[in-house]
Amino acid sequence: MEKVKPGTPESTMLKGYIMSTLFYEPSTRTRLSFESAMGRLGGTVVSTESASEYSSAAKGETLEDTIRTVEGYTDCIVIRHFQEGSAQRAANVASVPIINAGDGPGQHPSQALLDAYTIQREVGRVDDIKIGMVGDLANGRTVRSLCMLLSLYSGIKIYFVAPPVVRMRDDIKAMLTSRGVNWQEVTDLREVAADVNVLYQTRIQKERFTNLEDYAQARGKYIIDKDIMEILPKDAVVMHPLPRVDEITVDVDTDPRAAYFRQAKNGLYVRMALLKMCILNK
Amino acid sequence: MEKVKPGTPESTMLKGYIMSTLFYEPSTRTRLSFESAMGRLGGTVVSTESASEYSSAAKGETLEDTIRTVEGYTDCIVIRHFQEGSAQRAANVASVPIINAGDGPGQHPSQALLDAYTIQREVGRVDDIKIGMVGDLANGRTVRSLCMLLSLYSGIKIYFVAPPVVRMRDDIKAMLTSRGVNWQEVTDLREVAADVNVLYQTRIQKERFTNLEDYAQARGKYIIDKDIMEILPKDAVVMHPLPRVDEITVDVDTDPRAAYFRQAKNGLYVRMALLKMCILNK
Amino acid sequence: MEKVKPGTPESTMLKGYIMSTLFYEPSTRTRLSFESAMGRLGGTVVSTESASEYSSAAKGETLEDTIRTVEGYTDCIVIRHFQEGSAQRAANVASVPIINAGDGPGQHPSQALLDAYTIQREVGRVDDIKIGMVGDLANGRTVRSLCMLLSLYSGIKIYFVAPPVVRMRDDIKAMLTSRGVNWQEVTDLREVAADVNVLYQTRIQKERFTNLEDYAQARGKYIIDKDIMEILPKDAVVMHPLPRVDEITVDVDTDPRAAYFRQAKNGLYVRMALLKMCILNK
Repeated sequence: MEKVKPGTPESTMLKGYIMSTLFYEPSTRTRLSFESAMGRLGGTVVSTESASEYSSAAKGETLEDTIRTVEGYTDCIVIRHFQEGSAQRAANVASVPIINAGDGPGQHPSQALLDAYTIQREVGRVDDIKIGMVGDLANGRTVRSLCMLLSLYSGIKIYFVAPPVVRMRDDIKAMLTSRGVNWQEVTDLREVAADVNVLYQTRIQKERFTNLEDYAQARGKYIIDKDIMEILPKDAVVMHPLPRVDEITVDVDTDPRAAYFRQAKNGLYVRMALLKMCILNK
Repeated sequence: MEKVKPGTPESTMLKGYIMSTLFYEPSTRTRLSFESAMGRLGGTVVSTESASEYSSAAKGETLEDTIRTVEGYTDCIVIRHFQEGSAQRAANVASVPIINAGDGPGQHPSQALLDAYTIQREVGRVDDIKIGMVGDLANGRTVRSLCMLLSLYSGIKIYFVAPPVVRMRDDIKAMLTSRGVNWQEVTDLREVAADVNVLYQTRIQKERFTNLEDYAQARGKYIIDKDIMEILPKDAVVMHPLPRVDEITVDVDTDPRAAYFRQAKNGLYVRMALLKMCILNK
Repeated sequence: MEKVKPGTPESTMLKGYIMSTLFYEPSTRTRLSFESAMGRLGGTVVSTESASEYSSAAKGETLEDTIRTVEGYTDCIVIRHFQEGSAQRAANVASVPIINAGDGPGQHPSQALLDAYTIQREVGRVDDIKIGMVGDLANGRTVRSLCMLLSLYSGIKIYFVAPPVVRMRDDIKAMLTSRGVNWQEVTDLREVAADVNVLYQTRIQKERFTNLEDYAQARGKYIIDKDIMEILPKDAVVMHPLPRVDEITVDVDTDPRAAYFRQAKNGLYVRMALLKMCILNK
């Protein structure tokens, strides 16, 4: 896909519309890609980079009151919040579209959309793929949302490869089972790497641990390095929602199957589509 | 009032102009509504969300030097600062319009404009109204500015209902008296609620107290709840500059006389008018 | 030079293009002037005011990974970082233009461009000038970059006037010598003031000192005040990259030879030119 070129009709599609970003947690990728997406379509952004400290939340305002205020100014609200369920709370009181850009360890649905789009582009299909999800599956909202989205496709096989303290939670497992998705918990990354179309690595998220011993135990157990890449099929890809710390070694970056920076860029295109849909078709 | 629609001439009225926001104190409402107002008119914004920590103020620069620099880049400066009188100091050295978006416990004039606009729309007039101002009147810059603006109208009656530690300060009382405005300090909220067109509640602002005992004493004394709403006349309204903590109970929100979220939205329209006036007619 | 007027072709030259600002250190001037420059040319900005705390850097992401992500969204990246060499590291992995807006005690090249532009406008030439650089020359990236730029002109004479703990570093001295630039270390500010076309004062940067005794020793030694202005030739000017603390006394500001606020404003024009060049001619 090409960038929207300045001067084309697409580049002014959302001219005159305003999107607000309310970010209660740190972010580079998600906030900047939403804001760039709005900009690429000619729209305007009002932004809160650190809402917890600098907004009225610091004065004791509820999320609901903040939303009821901000919806008066803007055509769409993109929210990232540290509490699971917060985006739903926002949507319950809002009359403008709310986009969940991550609600604590809950969901990250626009990430799932860009992940599915990336799988389609890289593998050529989403149906009938085998995917290994690796790392912090308990707190990783990206894999949780991706499981939900993949459950709408057919012929999916999911391997969960996680340190014991951060295994995939039961709610997602039950959802997958009820929808007939084939899933399996595996402890040997090498075994999985040999069999998948997509190896989806995630970061062990230190900020989600209250017990640092648990963190130390979880970290460093499943690393994707040159050895794993030798096992991985030639036409498979490695994905990662980023940011990465050390769970994929840097020497993997130049392998053509390392799709994670292309994946990040796809976030721009998917979010452009999402904003157009939310703002113009509401 | 309708939103400015994308594609209308109004929506590009300030195209090519730049407004800067210098915020040295937390804010959601005021900053986002100024920035949205500029966006709705096609203008551009450069923003500082937390100027105290991230700007050159952290390196020891004076406010005057900051203003003399920023005025070189932009057509209008919107400033919120923790010190009373700071906006005046900025205006003293600036050659572009300075808009005071709150100067500590001093003034908040654009809030007064949107409050008067809200009273006009909700009550049908500003002259000859009875208004009860409730809560932290010592530190509440919104009520201070509203008193100044209302003193330009005729037939105004103001009731001040405040805990003893945060009564309206003498400067405002003297100003009202000298302009012939009828005002009165009252301790019984129920008595006032029964008699007014507008009940204007404010938050007890913890961040303005140096003594937390004073805060504890002031907080929770005057709450607007279902009981007060039963006393309030049918055609009166409840206003609040927001954010709210617990001084209006949430079950009041659905009462049609609860005007505070409509009031917040009026901030957008009033600030659009203000920016047009400051930037185009200067 | 006049501001670009709204409605002229110049004012939409970069319409549809996106610049991102990644600021890992506090800034008012540089960030706002880059963002205003982009706005004056009709471009869009996505901004990170405090990248160290609120971006993925806080989660342990490398600068290289951040750049590889952000370049997917934007047409140009302006970066300020606390580590010398960081902008070069960014440029090594990026496929969009990287503009160094200050890399710790390293370089600040866009400041050097605006400084040279200011000298040209104020003195009428850059060749054959005598310039006194005063203050923290060890940590001052603006004087380091200005030395590099001035070394491309002919007939330059540079006086370095610095407290012993913060003298100009050897790398710059060696570069100047190898390029045949005449430079000299002087301890008497008065002697220099009497002889120069440009007196370039800099702030003693507390944030670069690990030893506060060194800071105390360095600070307050070389102050430009009314007395110095009496010695300074009539057609010479005082420049300063700002922010200033007390190294130029406020009573100097009204002297027509005090060029520092004009210099700050020139930053807007020079950065507009720089962005046009980087984004359109790449």
